[in-house]
Amino acid sequence: MKTIGYAAQSAGTALAPFEFERRDLRPNDVAMEILYCGICHTDLHQVRNDWGRSNYPLVPGHEIVGRVIDVGSDVAHYKVGDTVAVGCMVDSCQHCDQCHHGEEQMCREGMTQTYNDVDRITGDRTYGGYSKHLVVREEFVLGVPDGLDASRAAPLLCAGITTYSPLRTWNVGPGSRVGVIGLGGLGHMAVKLAAAMGADVTVMSRTEDKEADALALGADRLLVSSNSEAMEEAQSSFDLIIDTVPVKHDLNPYLPLLDIDGTLVLVGQVGPLEEPITVPMIMGRRRIAGSPIGGIDETQELLNFCAKKNILPECEMIGIDEVNEAFERMERADVRYRFVIDMASLSQ
Amino acid sequence: MKTIGYAAQSAGTALAPFEFERRDLRPNDVAMEILYCGICHTDLHQVRNDWGRSNYPLVPGHEIVGRVIDVGSDVAHYKVGDTVAVGCMVDSCQHCDQCHHGEEQMCREGMTQTYNDVDRITGDRTYGGYSKHLVVREEFVLGVPDGLDASRAAPLLCAGITTYSPLRTWNVGPGSRVGVIGLGGLGHMAVKLAAAMGADVTVMSRTEDKEADALALGADRLLVSSNSEAMEEAQSSFDLIIDTVPVKHDLNPYLPLLDIDGTLVLVGQVGPLEEPITVPMIMGRRRIAGSPIGGIDETQELLNFCAKKNILPECEMIGIDEVNEAFERMERADVRYRFVIDMASLSQ
Repeated sequence: MKTIGYAAQSAGTALAPFEFERRDLRPNDVAMEILYCGICHTDLHQVRNDWGRSNYPLVPGHEIVGRVIDVGSDVAHYKVGDTVAVGCMVDSCQHCDQCHHGEEQMCREGMTQTYNDVDRITGDRTYGGYSKHLVVREEFVLGVPDGLDASRAAPLLCAGITTYSPLRTWNVGPGSRVGVIGLGGLGHMAVKLAAAMGADVTVMSRTEDKEADALALGADRLLVSSNSEAMEEAQSSFDLIIDTVPVKHDLNPYLPLLDIDGTLVLVGQVGPLEEPITVPMIMGRRRIAGSPIGGIDETQELLNFCAKKNILPECEMIGIDEVNEAFERMERADVRYRFVIDMASLSQ
Repeated sequence: MKTIGYAAQSAGTALAPFEFERRDLRPNDVAMEILYCGICHTDLHQVRNDWGRSNYPLVPGHEIVGRVIDVGSDVAHYKVGDTVAVGCMVDSCQHCDQCHHGEEQMCREGMTQTYNDVDRITGDRTYGGYSKHLVVREEFVLGVPDGLDASRAAPLLCAGITTYSPLRTWNVGPGSRVGVIGLGGLGHMAVKLAAAMGADVTVMSRTEDKEADALALGADRLLVSSNSEAMEEAQSSFDLIIDTVPVKHDLNPYLPLLDIDGTLVLVGQVGPLEEPITVPMIMGRRRIAGSPIGGIDETQELLNFCAKKNILPECEMIGIDEVNEAFERMERADVRYRFVIDMASLSQ
């Protein structure tokens, strides 16, 4: 199938229209017309080759909502017209222990990323959701439940699951004391999801100006990390801290905020951290962990949870011709809280 | 009670004989004659004021085995003649949640350390086990079970419990894959204890020369961390790594060795670490944690476990007049694996 998307041709060029082919349907494939695609910080890193692993042309996008337009002969769970979604991965080995217990994101042979990766069968490049159409094997297609606003659901596929998964892994529920560092795309989802699970939620920010936003999103309070008295008072008062900061930073002010056996889980920064001091870890058996996205089952669980609880990301809808400007604004943290591309703006 | 010990009079002076008073028995106190005291790396740090919190004169020692010589009127569990032990703490608040569930080492009000601390009632300084006598409240006295060689049991009170506690916290048992970094006082106990629990145990060392020792202690193999091929092969193959390295070091070579959801637990270094790279943590939900000693119940459990399984630290017995030389040898890692002072060498 011939389609069109927006691609970067090198690390230094802006995204621009790009025609390419989507593969012919395999028996277990679902073809979809993409309706919406969220813009993730990862897209920016990949386009600019910040991690040194980008191949060009590169069509980003892994927060994808679409409508089924065709299905392969073996597809059992989707039919033409269904509203569906695709996240950060489009394949995995399907036979390792991780795949077997629904954690394809940690497939022993490596999952296939939605873009900037290669198809496991043909070796062809994968292209992401800043495009008009997508073909994905059924096992990696999610159902968008009735009642979930499709125009705002896209960011759940990365920002949503990246914060939902650690909340589930560390058993957050009523009474859990959850801190969230950073109030961007991931952070605002962490607040909404933790609050919906019944947790007591605190947003941590360097300045007071985020307070109204934090409370509006469902947080119980803002903790100003530059206020040493407030930080001292908050020691040992969190079961879990979700750290969404996407750059190198210092965990030392935050570790003593964890209660005994508490965990600070990194979901933002992929790279180095400042030197940690072990004292609060040793004295309080506190932990630092990381967490990737979630598995397919868990992602479907998230979509169902959001439909049931009426949780939606805060989105700013843009046309695809505004995507380069959106990247620049994202770098200045000038978005509340996630850009979503309305793919109707992309004509073939 | 008048007694004698070895004290440092300042950060720069050698340990030398020092006369002082032990308190009169309170109703819940046990008085003991000290038979043996292990030498812990902490003693060296405290004597030299490496952590900036030392008060002088300072009598170190928190791996203590003794014989009861007197008991207060309310003491229920010990009688004159019993062989007993005291570890790193001699008191705690006894009313917080941590004390209530047997984790006095993380008492909300702070436990009282066996030395270089102050008594909760009188405010008097606490002096440790490099001395002839000790008076401790009953709740912090441990029973040395029949069948446990008292002359080698002392290092269990710190090196033993510091490694036993994380093995228990992270549920090590038959089939667990445990790595141990560093083969000193703590490391050699981690190997013995993990092996006795039925784990598959790997010692990690920079050079091959530790292999025979590692195997003799009960390890299944040595992994040479400077062998990049072996390190690559060992990726994702550990459930738990006990890191006993007592200086600033780099965790990045070790984190990928953890399996998904695995934990590297720090028990040696109290201070900074090199900058960690988050990638293996995020991609495999791997964790870095710390762990202090253990609670009183858990320490008693350890002593009983060691008696039952016939596990004893490897000790080099010295006279107290050799303690300064022992410190120097310890700094050169010239001890296999723990010095124990025979307190019969100390005359009053």
